[in-house]
Amino acid sequence: MTVLVFLDTAFPDGRPADAGVPQLMINDLGVTRGDGIFESLLAVDSVPRKPHAHLDRLASSAQQLELDIPPRASWERAIATALRLHADAGDHGAVPGGRAAVKLVVTRGVEGAAAPTAWVQVTAAADAADQRTKGIKVLLLDRGYDSLAAARAPWLLLGAKTLSYAVNMAALRYARQNGADDAIFTSSDGKVLEGPTSTVVLARERGGVRTLVTPERKSGILAGTTQDALFRAAEAAGWELGYGPLVPEDLFAADGVWLASSIRLLVPVRSIDGRELAFSADLNAELAGLADTAL
Amino acid sequence: MTVLVFLDTAFPDGRPADAGVPQLMINDLGVTRGDGIFESLLAVDSVPRKPHAHLDRLASSAQQLELDIPPRASWERAIATALRLHADAGDHGAVPGGRAAVKLVVTRGVEGAAAPTAWVQVTAAADAADQRTKGIKVLLLDRGYDSLAAARAPWLLLGAKTLSYAVNMAALRYARQNGADDAIFTSSDGKVLEGPTSTVVLARERGGVRTLVTPERKSGILAGTTQDALFRAAEAAGWELGYGPLVPEDLFAADGVWLASSIRLLVPVRSIDGRELAFSADLNAELAGLADTAL
Repeated sequence: MTVLVFLDTAFPDGRPADAGVPQLMINDLGVTRGDGIFESLLAVDSVPRKPHAHLDRLASSAQQLELDIPPRASWERAIATALRLHADAGDHGAVPGGRAAVKLVVTRGVEGAAAPTAWVQVTAAADAADQRTKGIKVLLLDRGYDSLAAARAPWLLLGAKTLSYAVNMAALRYARQNGADDAIFTSSDGKVLEGPTSTVVLARERGGVRTLVTPERKSGILAGTTQDALFRAAEAAGWELGYGPLVPEDLFAADGVWLASSIRLLVPVRSIDGRELAFSADLNAELAGLADTAL
Repeated sequence: MTVLVFLDTAFPDGRPADAGVPQLMINDLGVTRGDGIFESLLAVDSVPRKPHAHLDRLASSAQQLELDIPPRASWERAIATALRLHADAGDHGAVPGGRAAVKLVVTRGVEGAAAPTAWVQVTAAADAADQRTKGIKVLLLDRGYDSLAAARAPWLLLGAKTLSYAVNMAALRYARQNGADDAIFTSSDGKVLEGPTSTVVLARERGGVRTLVTPERKSGILAGTTQDALFRAAEAAGWELGYGPLVPEDLFAADGVWLASSIRLLVPVRSIDGRELAFSADLNAELAGLADTAL
């Protein structure tokens, strides 16, 4: 089942609503223009994982889109309400460990209206255990932008997590129709960017030093909350950290490549464009353990 | 008032619904992913303008997004129903000439559902007579893509009219906050592309030959239905036609520059980045007359 709680100034803890019936106006700018932002976070046993990182990124996306969104406390209370209702409904055990996907959405509201439309939605999380163990095949797909576009053209909203995800969805369809499970975007100047719904992480071991590396954020990618949590946990466990620029050859030369995201967590990439990558089940389990403890 | 008619296989003429209450599910992929397409067309005295061009482009967008949309006849019947209801409601005279804006929308439907969500929406058209006479100020904004991206990366959906318009809206906000009314996108390799919601047209007269020119479509821009209708009418009136590539200097050297779109029609651009353009009220009136007769 889906639990729905709208953010509503008249309801300090959020206004629960029936997700089984229509709740949005047809002229909400979220649908007519994809004009809004979102976050997806994991909750385990009704406790949200790294809520502050997600609320920070929501605020950052809102700033890029000049969206006046509800205050952080309203989100925290609405998330708590939605998770309580989801637990009460007894659906939280739908996957092992009682994992739920919590989605936060804000649109610019109905055309001509002054207020945004904002809600929290909770569903059972899809079970990605198989992908986390066995890994996935990936295609490199050109994102069309060069790695300097974000800096010179703020209206491109690069780095904001907007509702305008048609290109991300088209890239996933293209990958799946061409023998892969997912994609990694590259810039038109050949840099590794990010997945359509994930952050790229690679591991390398050289002369006894173990390093995790991710593309630099100034290349116009989303700030990965799961990658960031993994990096902090890995650093505490003795890993060195590195930030791009990365090119595809860096992925092929790595001792392992992963896609990091909040619900699916850390998924090892086993091949890129049909070319096999290094993979160690032990290293995968070690990093998965670090990623799954992030709070 | 807004008239709303859903396309629904159980209702051959479309299913009228109340646009004043929520009609969309919160997990419709149109809102959660901006995953859908749309068209906006003008109706005058309840007669839709160039419906075939819009339905052709809707079909082309659907193909790019691999969306299985309702057949053309269903759209035509739903449009007729919506225009009749709008006329019955007596709202069609809200602007001179009884002009209405007809919006066609298709989303990929509710997450997990097999069928798209599709509707026709009719409202009184905004009155743009002032802009058509006096013209507008425009900024050139970098679209981030080079002019060859569309050809090599179909997943970028360039040339499809998707619901993922957050960047288009951000570009308009940026222009308005910086002393302009609208924007013209340029490619990262310096070519003139299109406006966020319009097609660029320029006129030049050299040695007695009058020519209308628009950017070439293979540069990843939308096929402009109003530009196309204007071109056909102009050709019949003795104009030569040309297709880009165009660079900004071509705009500054032209005898007039316009933004063409279906509801606002032909709006003259009076300045770009603060630099004044050539403008002739007679030429503007002549082209406006040609654009406004397009069926």
